[in-house]
Amino acid sequence: MRVREADLSAFVERSLTHVGIDEQQAKTVADILVAADRRGIESHGVARLRWFYVDRIRNGRIKAQPRYEIVRESATALLIDADNGLGHPAAHLAMTRAIDKARASGIAFSAVRNSNHYGIAGYYAMMALEYDMIGICSTDSIHLAVPTFGSTKMQGTNPFAFAVPAGEEPPFVLDFSTTTVTYGKLEVYERKALALKPGWAVDEHGNPTTDPAARHWGSLLPLGGFGTEGGGHKGYGLGALAEILTGVLAAGWFGAALTLTEGPDAPSGITSHFFGAISIEALRDVREFKLEMDRELRTFKASTPAPGESRVYVAGEIEHENEIAFRRDGIPLIGPVIDDLDALAADLGIDPITRISP
Amino acid sequence: MRVREADLSAFVERSLTHVGIDEQQAKTVADILVAADRRGIESHGVARLRWFYVDRIRNGRIKAQPRYEIVRESATALLIDADNGLGHPAAHLAMTRAIDKARASGIAFSAVRNSNHYGIAGYYAMMALEYDMIGICSTDSIHLAVPTFGSTKMQGTNPFAFAVPAGEEPPFVLDFSTTTVTYGKLEVYERKALALKPGWAVDEHGNPTTDPAARHWGSLLPLGGFGTEGGGHKGYGLGALAEILTGVLAAGWFGAALTLTEGPDAPSGITSHFFGAISIEALRDVREFKLEMDRELRTFKASTPAPGESRVYVAGEIEHENEIAFRRDGIPLIGPVIDDLDALAADLGIDPITRISP
Repeated sequence: MRVREADLSAFVERSLTHVGIDEQQAKTVADILVAADRRGIESHGVARLRWFYVDRIRNGRIKAQPRYEIVRESATALLIDADNGLGHPAAHLAMTRAIDKARASGIAFSAVRNSNHYGIAGYYAMMALEYDMIGICSTDSIHLAVPTFGSTKMQGTNPFAFAVPAGEEPPFVLDFSTTTVTYGKLEVYERKALALKPGWAVDEHGNPTTDPAARHWGSLLPLGGFGTEGGGHKGYGLGALAEILTGVLAAGWFGAALTLTEGPDAPSGITSHFFGAISIEALRDVREFKLEMDRELRTFKASTPAPGESRVYVAGEIEHENEIAFRRDGIPLIGPVIDDLDALAADLGIDPITRISP
Repeated sequence: MRVREADLSAFVERSLTHVGIDEQQAKTVADILVAADRRGIESHGVARLRWFYVDRIRNGRIKAQPRYEIVRESATALLIDADNGLGHPAAHLAMTRAIDKARASGIAFSAVRNSNHYGIAGYYAMMALEYDMIGICSTDSIHLAVPTFGSTKMQGTNPFAFAVPAGEEPPFVLDFSTTTVTYGKLEVYERKALALKPGWAVDEHGNPTTDPAARHWGSLLPLGGFGTEGGGHKGYGLGALAEILTGVLAAGWFGAALTLTEGPDAPSGITSHFFGAISIEALRDVREFKLEMDRELRTFKASTPAPGESRVYVAGEIEHENEIAFRRDGIPLIGPVIDDLDALAADLGIDPITRISP
């Protein structure tokens, strides 16, 4: 099943406006969710529309009409309290303002607290690209992973995203969770009854496990895996850094407050985000930078693949190719997602997603 | 063999001034090298004094009396050309200036090009701590690692360091190479004839290997290991980001120019560095931030260890404990390092390192 980008956006917009989100904010959320699907990051796109956002607005967990507060502001910095609204519009505002400030100052940063899930971190980092800036974004999240040598969940999948403009080449876009894999990966492996790979998860005592059902009683591992041998302490450190730059720096929630179960009744307004924008021109001529970025990225791409591999990719390249293909052929949605969104349409009494006619 | 910090610093200073480095710069280098040993990061300390620095100054590869050029400067940004001098003084200047600018502006960044090895990245990030700032540092380096799915060396151990101040707790200091392990680890395993761990290295074709001699014909792997299963593409992306933020952004060397052999005759002046400083106060009250950092760090440290483990650490804690112990008991130096430095003293005709009398 494939759908046009515009049709998918329109569906997200009518779902959200139906539950009381204002039109401009609904457009922003739609753009961000559809960007995830268009880039092939289906875990963070419209598949979450119902249970992460619409259901939680309907049951009052997330405020449909938040009143943002500017907590602190200067020429290079901004802290926004999102008043427990949807994460996307608050994050979009914070990154927009960071970019505005960096256009004047060369570099700026911002943070958001009392927010909620905001989709893909890479979207916000990529907002900097058209202004010839390097974009940075991170967020904290519900705790799913143990620290190195630990057995208690202490951090989320806490992603970092960095976007760097290039010339003719697609931009360099690195957007990654600081756990080895995300929770969704364990769900997929459990559904397929496949053993997990080493370095992905531990059981309830903190021992390594490959049990595909581990997500029910165990925890994720940080990037680098179990212990320190594969560099697990580095992934753990990056995950902790994400929570420090967001929850602690934004004077939001952190630590035990984030150690909670997911679900419709889980607390909301506990997520914090971080944003940065760095002007290339502050250090060098933008045109020359882009020419050299092209050279750098092409050097990676032209390097010799390992046996059995056909290509060496650079960060963001696969997602860029997905965008081209999905804009041409439509965005693929799997059966369970389409069914879920059709049920949502029926439930809300709105038009379902328009399919591409065969 | 243990030596006092001051005696070790004094030895580094007299070695460097003897080969033509000015006194102030020699003091800076000594402080940075000794900090590595004091923190237990012996690979990046005085063990490198002779072959990374003194020998390369003596054979003319590194300029003893460089003339720095300020290439571009604004209220929040600075680019320095280090004129192929030692990396440490140029890096120290760039971070000092970034901090000065961030004190006025809230956030600032800087970069250095045409530089050389600069010791531990964490040192420069930690310079921000006393100003109640978050410090950031990265550098590129000679290529030793393959990209994901590749067989050709395309990036160095390219570290990132982040330092965040706390209150009563030691600061959070995350300083890590973006490869699973460093080259030095393979040397140690070869010396001990131990099989390498999976995820550390590939052979000359790009196939995974555990051969302890792999460093002679193979390459390191990015953090996350071989392929994408353990997140190797994330470590590869971070390593590439380091080279982009340094070599490309600083208009220095990058790509093929860094794909070179180490050794006394290896080209110099090809390294670039990146520095950032973020004022806590730009977003929130510093005292409150530090109290909450203490809470955050203590939450990690108080969490339940996995079976067989006694403690959960936070980033920088082990190094902090080393500093306390080594300041009290002296800094331990292994036999080969002492021998090397004694030979250097004899060679230069200067006094050897003063030992702690038994």
